[in-house]
Amino acid sequence: MSLEGQENQSDTSHNKSPLLSDPWKPCRQHRAVVKELLLKLRCCLGTVCGIEWYGYAALGILTAILSFLMDLSVAKLLRAHQWLYTMLEGNVLLQFLCWTLYPACICAIASSFSHNICPFSTGSGIPEVRTMLAGFEMPHYLSLTNLFSKFLGLICTLAAGSTVFLGKVGPFVHLSTMVGGYLSNLCTLIQRDKKEKAAGQMLVVSAGVGVASCFGAPIGGVLFSVEVMSSHFALRHYCPCFFSAACGALTFRLLAVWGGDGETLQALFRTNFPDALPFYPLEILLFAFLGLLCGAVSCCYLFCHRWILRFTKTNPVFAKMLTTEKALYSGMVVFFLASLTFPHFAGHYMASKYTMKELLTSFLDSRQWTSQSHNTSEQLQPLLEWSSSGTSVYFSLVFFLLMKMWMLVLACTLPLPAGYFMPVFIYGAAIGRLIGEGAAYLSSTGVTPGQQWASVNPGGYALAGAAAFSGAVTHTLSPVLVAIELTGQFTHAVPILLATLLANALSRSGQRPSFYDALSISKRLPHLPSLKKASPQLPSTPVGQVAVKSVLLQKAAGPVEAEQAVRTSTEMQIPVVDSYGERTNLLECLNHLPHSSSLSTSSLCCCSHKKNAHSILSLLGSQTLFVADEGKLVGLITWPEKEDTAEPNQT
Amino acid sequence: MSLEGQENQSDTSHNKSPLLSDPWKPCRQHRAVVKELLLKLRCCLGTVCGIEWYGYAALGILTAILSFLMDLSVAKLLRAHQWLYTMLEGNVLLQFLCWTLYPACICAIASSFSHNICPFSTGSGIPEVRTMLAGFEMPHYLSLTNLFSKFLGLICTLAAGSTVFLGKVGPFVHLSTMVGGYLSNLCTLIQRDKKEKAAGQMLVVSAGVGVASCFGAPIGGVLFSVEVMSSHFALRHYCPCFFSAACGALTFRLLAVWGGDGETLQALFRTNFPDALPFYPLEILLFAFLGLLCGAVSCCYLFCHRWILRFTKTNPVFAKMLTTEKALYSGMVVFFLASLTFPHFAGHYMASKYTMKELLTSFLDSRQWTSQSHNTSEQLQPLLEWSSSGTSVYFSLVFFLLMKMWMLVLACTLPLPAGYFMPVFIYGAAIGRLIGEGAAYLSSTGVTPGQQWASVNPGGYALAGAAAFSGAVTHTLSPVLVAIELTGQFTHAVPILLATLLANALSRSGQRPSFYDALSISKRLPHLPSLKKASPQLPSTPVGQVAVKSVLLQKAAGPVEAEQAVRTSTEMQIPVVDSYGERTNLLECLNHLPHSSSLSTSSLCCCSHKKNAHSILSLLGSQTLFVADEGKLVGLITWPEKEDTAEPNQT
Repeated sequence: MSLEGQENQSDTSHNKSPLLSDPWKPCRQHRAVVKELLLKLRCCLGTVCGIEWYGYAALGILTAILSFLMDLSVAKLLRAHQWLYTMLEGNVLLQFLCWTLYPACICAIASSFSHNICPFSTGSGIPEVRTMLAGFEMPHYLSLTNLFSKFLGLICTLAAGSTVFLGKVGPFVHLSTMVGGYLSNLCTLIQRDKKEKAAGQMLVVSAGVGVASCFGAPIGGVLFSVEVMSSHFALRHYCPCFFSAACGALTFRLLAVWGGDGETLQALFRTNFPDALPFYPLEILLFAFLGLLCGAVSCCYLFCHRWILRFTKTNPVFAKMLTTEKALYSGMVVFFLASLTFPHFAGHYMASKYTMKELLTSFLDSRQWTSQSHNTSEQLQPLLEWSSSGTSVYFSLVFFLLMKMWMLVLACTLPLPAGYFMPVFIYGAAIGRLIGEGAAYLSSTGVTPGQQWASVNPGGYALAGAAAFSGAVTHTLSPVLVAIELTGQFTHAVPILLATLLANALSRSGQRPSFYDALSISKRLPHLPSLKKASPQLPSTPVGQVAVKSVLLQKAAGPVEAEQAVRTSTEMQIPVVDSYGERTNLLECLNHLPHSSSLSTSSLCCCSHKKNAHSILSLLGSQTLFVADEGKLVGLITWPEKEDTAEPNQT
Repeated sequence: MSLEGQENQSDTSHNKSPLLSDPWKPCRQHRAVVKELLLKLRCCLGTVCGIEWYGYAALGILTAILSFLMDLSVAKLLRAHQWLYTMLEGNVLLQFLCWTLYPACICAIASSFSHNICPFSTGSGIPEVRTMLAGFEMPHYLSLTNLFSKFLGLICTLAAGSTVFLGKVGPFVHLSTMVGGYLSNLCTLIQRDKKEKAAGQMLVVSAGVGVASCFGAPIGGVLFSVEVMSSHFALRHYCPCFFSAACGALTFRLLAVWGGDGETLQALFRTNFPDALPFYPLEILLFAFLGLLCGAVSCCYLFCHRWILRFTKTNPVFAKMLTTEKALYSGMVVFFLASLTFPHFAGHYMASKYTMKELLTSFLDSRQWTSQSHNTSEQLQPLLEWSSSGTSVYFSLVFFLLMKMWMLVLACTLPLPAGYFMPVFIYGAAIGRLIGEGAAYLSSTGVTPGQQWASVNPGGYALAGAAAFSGAVTHTLSPVLVAIELTGQFTHAVPILLATLLANALSRSGQRPSFYDALSISKRLPHLPSLKKASPQLPSTPVGQVAVKSVLLQKAAGPVEAEQAVRTSTEMQIPVVDSYGERTNLLECLNHLPHSSSLSTSSLCCCSHKKNAHSILSLLGSQTLFVADEGKLVGLITWPEKEDTAEPNQT
C-alpha cells in the first residue's frame, strides 16, 4: 500500500487527503488501509445500483428493528403491570392503586421527559412531517434528541395500555423520518452529488416506511402515507417507497419469526375467517349501512376533537397547565381515565383488562359471541371479558363505545408522544362488531327471509368498521389495505372498500378538516393538502372575483407607489405583485411607511409556484394570502381555520 | 301542470324553453310532464351529492356489464370450438382444420371488421388513452363506432383462445374511456357548469375502472392505471376512481353470482393455498431469485417486442401487408400459430387444449404436479394436460415458455383489438410454476437441509412470477395487488412484492422503455410518463449544458433577427424563446426564409408549463424539443426512441 498507489486513485478518493496531509494523526498506515478498503467497497456497491438504494434498504431495516424493539419493551412493561395486578388479587384498594398509579406515573414520566429533553417530541408527529414534506426546514424535529425522547416517550405511552388507549403509528412515521434524515445525510456524504434531490426523496420514502414497519403492512402503509402527506404524488417515488417498505415489513416479520412468534411470516392480527362463504351478497347492504354509520360517528368524533383542541387553547386553566405543568396534567388525566376503567368499577363493563392488541383480536374473532354463551365451548376467552358481569355483550359494546368516545378525545390532549390511528381503528372495529353481532344474532334466530344466513361472520363487520372509521377520521381510503394487510384476509376486500368509501363521503361532506388537518390548524402549521381538498376551485378563481376593490401594486413598484397605494386603500391588505427576489426590499421599505401597521406584511408575495407561495405565507402566519402567477394575481387562499372557528356558532 | 307553474320554475329548468316555444312538437303536454319529473329527479339527486358521482357509479356499472357480456360471449364461442373439435375426434385432418381455421377465420373477420369500420380500434388502446389523459384531443378514439368495433373485435380475439394468447385488459381500458366520455358529456349536459374539469376527471376515472371491471379487482386496477397512465397523480382523483372501481367490481362479481357462478362474491381465480404455513422464511430467497429471473426474461421479451415493432415498420413486405391486407395477414399469422399449437403436433407438449383461464388456474394450483404422478389421486386434471405425452412436466413447461415467447411477440403484431397484460401475466405464472415445481421436488426428495420443507406450495411461486413478470414488462408495481385480488390470497403478499420489486429493478435498469412506452414510440404518440421516468434529471439541466453553441432567438424577435440567426447558426435546430401566442406568427415568418428548410419548425416552443410544451412539440413529431420557462431555456427533451434505435448496434 504505497503512497504512489494511493496517488493513482486520488481521483476516486477525495477523503484521503486530509488524513495523509496530517502527519500527527495516529495509526496513519492502518487507517489508510481501512479507508481504501471502504472506498473499494463503495465502488463495488455503486456498480450494482445507486448508493441511495442501500440507504432505502437500511431505512426499512432500521425502522423495523426500532419497531420490534419497541413492541418487545412495551410487551414486557404491560406484562409486569398485569403480573402485579394479579399478585394483588383480594385487596381491592391495592389493586386500584396498582391499576391507576402505574399508568399515571409512566405517563407523567413520559410527559416530563419529553417536556424537558425535547418539547417537539409530543403528539403524533404526522402534521410536522407533512409540513417538512411540503418543503419547510424544521431542524428541531429531526434532531437526535428528538429521536431519543420520542422513542422512550412512546414506549411509556404504549405501556400505559388500553387505559390511555393511544397507538404508535404517528410517532413512528416521525421516528422513521428522523432515521431517514440521518441516512440521507450519510448518503450525500458518500455520494457528494444529487444532494437536495436525495434528501427530499428520502423524506418521502421514510414517511411511507413508518407505517409499513409499524404494522408489517408495506402496501397499505405506503398508500396511507401518500394520502395523508401530500396532495400530489410523483410516481418516481413509488419504487423507492415500496422497496423500503418491503424491506421494513420483511424485517419486522422476520424478527417476529426469529423471536419465536410463529413458524413463518404472518399477518400481525391473523384471523380465522371462513374462506368458503365469506359473506352473502345481500350482506353488502349491511356493510354499506355500517359505512354510513361509521361516517356519522366519525363526524361526531372529529367535532369533539376540534372542540377540545380549541378548549385547551382558550380555557386559561388548561392552557396554563399544558404549558407549564405537563407532567402533572398527564398524571392527573391518566389517573382519572384509569380510575374509570378500573375492572371493579366501570371497566367491568368495557373489557378494560384487555390490552389494545387483545381488544382488536377479540373484535376480529369470526365466532359469534352471543352463540358461545349458549353452548359452552372450550374457547370462551372473548366472551369471558365482554360479558363477564353477566350483562349482554351488546350492552358492553355500547357502553365501551360511549365511554371510549370522550375518553379518547380527552386522551388526545395529553402532551405525550402518541399515535391516534390505532385507537380509531379499534374504535371502528367495535362499531363494526356491534353491527356484526346484531346481524349474526338476527340471522341465527331466523328473522331474515331464508334460513341460509346461518354463518354470518361478525369479524368481517369489525374489520370493515375499523377500516371505514379510521378512513373517515383521517379522510383516507388506504385503511382498507392496512386492514387487509393486518389480518391477511382478502375475502372481504370489496365490502370493506365500499364501507370506507361511504364513510369517507359522509365525513368529507361539508368540507370539514380531517383529524390531521385539525391538528395542523391547531398547531398553526401549513397544511397544503387539506387546502387543496377543502377548496379545489381555488386555482381557477378569476382575478376579478378576488381583486375587484383592492389596490394592486404593480411589479417593480417603488417606495412612492407603495406609499400612495397604502394611503389610498381602505383595505387591510394590499396584494403586491412582485418577483420573489424583490420582495424583501419592498417589505423593508414598507415597514418604514407611516401606514404600514395597517398593512399586513404577509400579503406580499409572488412566485410562479403556488406551493411555494403558500409555504412562504403560511410561515408568516397570516389568515389570507394572494397568489400571483407570472405577474397576474390568480387566486386568494384563506385558511380553512375560519370554518373551524365559525362552526361552534352554527351548531 | 299549467304553464304558469312551469314559468315559476323557469330558473331551474333551462331545458324546457325550446320545447314550449315550438308548438309543432307532438305530445307537448306529456313531454312537459315527463320533463318536469326529470327535472325534479335531478334536483333530488343533486341534493344527495354532485351529479358527477352518479356518473361515476354508472360508469362502473356499465363497464362491468360490458365486461360480463364479453366474458359470456367469449365463453360460448370457446365452448363451440371445443365441442366441434371433440365431435371430430378420430379424424386428424378434420380436427386440424377445425383447430386452425376457426381462430384464423375469427381473427381475419375481427381484423377486417376493425380495419373497415374503425381503423383506430386495433391494438391495446392504452397508449392512446394515455395520450388523451396528457391533454390531447383525439376525438376518433372516443367515437361510438370505435366502441362498437372494439367490443366486437375484442370478442373475436378472445374467442381465438390460447392459440393467439391475447388478453382483454388494454382494450377494456379504452372501452371504459369511451363510456366515460359519453357519461361525462351527459353529466355536463345535466350540470351545465364545471365543464372541462368534469370531463378530464371522468377520463382519469374511467381509465382506472377499465382494469377494475375487467378482473373485479378495484384496488389493483386503479393503482395499475395510475402507474401506467401518468407520472403524477392528484389525490383528488383518488376517491372518484375508487368509488367507480368499487361499483364496477361489485357489479362484475354480483353478475357472476346471479349468473350462477358461485354462491357469493369471490375472486376470479380462487386458489386453495394452505393458510397455516404459506411459505418458510428461507423461501423468500427463492422468491427473490424468481424476481430476478422474471426481470431478466422480461428484458429479453421487451427487446424482441421492440425489434418486431421496428421490423414490421421497416420490412417492406410486412409494412405493406399491415397497411392494406390486414385481414389476410391476421388470418395467415393465426393459422400459422394454430397449426403449431395443434394438439397432435407441438401443442401436445404445451397444454394447448387449455383456454387462457384454465392455463392460469392450472399454474396457480397449490398441489405439486410431480407428486401427483406418483400417487394417483382423483384430481389429476392439471397433470393430464401438462404431462399427457408421458413427458416430464418440466419439459412441458420449458417448451411452453420457449415457444410462447416468440409466438406472443408475433401475436403482438396482429392488427386486432387485443390486450397484452394477461398474456404476460400467464407467461410469468409459467416461469414461477417452473421454479416452484423444482423447489417442491427438491424439498420433497430431501435435498434441502431439513425435512421440514415438506409442503412447498408451487402455486405461490406461480403467483409471484405472474406479478413479477407482468410488473417488469409494464414497469409497474401494482400487478402485485392485481395478482392478490385475482386470487383473493393475501398470504404471499410480501414475497410477491419483493419479487416484483427486484424484477422491476432489473427491467428498468438501462432506461429502456416499458412495453407501453415502446408502443407509444412506435405509434409516435406523446408519452410524458416514460420521459419523466427515463430521464428524471431533465428539469434541472442548466442552460449552459444544452445551449452552449446554439443561437438563441430572443423573445419578441422580429423577422430580421430570425433570418440572421438562421444564417449564422450551423445547427439544425434553433431554440426560440417566445411567448406561446406569438409562436405561430414567427413560425409563419420563418417558413418564408430561404434557410427555413434546415430549421426544424418543431423546435419553436415556449410556455411556462413543461407538460404543455411537451404536448405541443410531441404532436409536431420532432425528435428534440427545447423547454423554456418564463423566458429562460431550462431544458432539452429528446425522445427515448434514440436508445431504442441505438440498441441493436450495441447488442
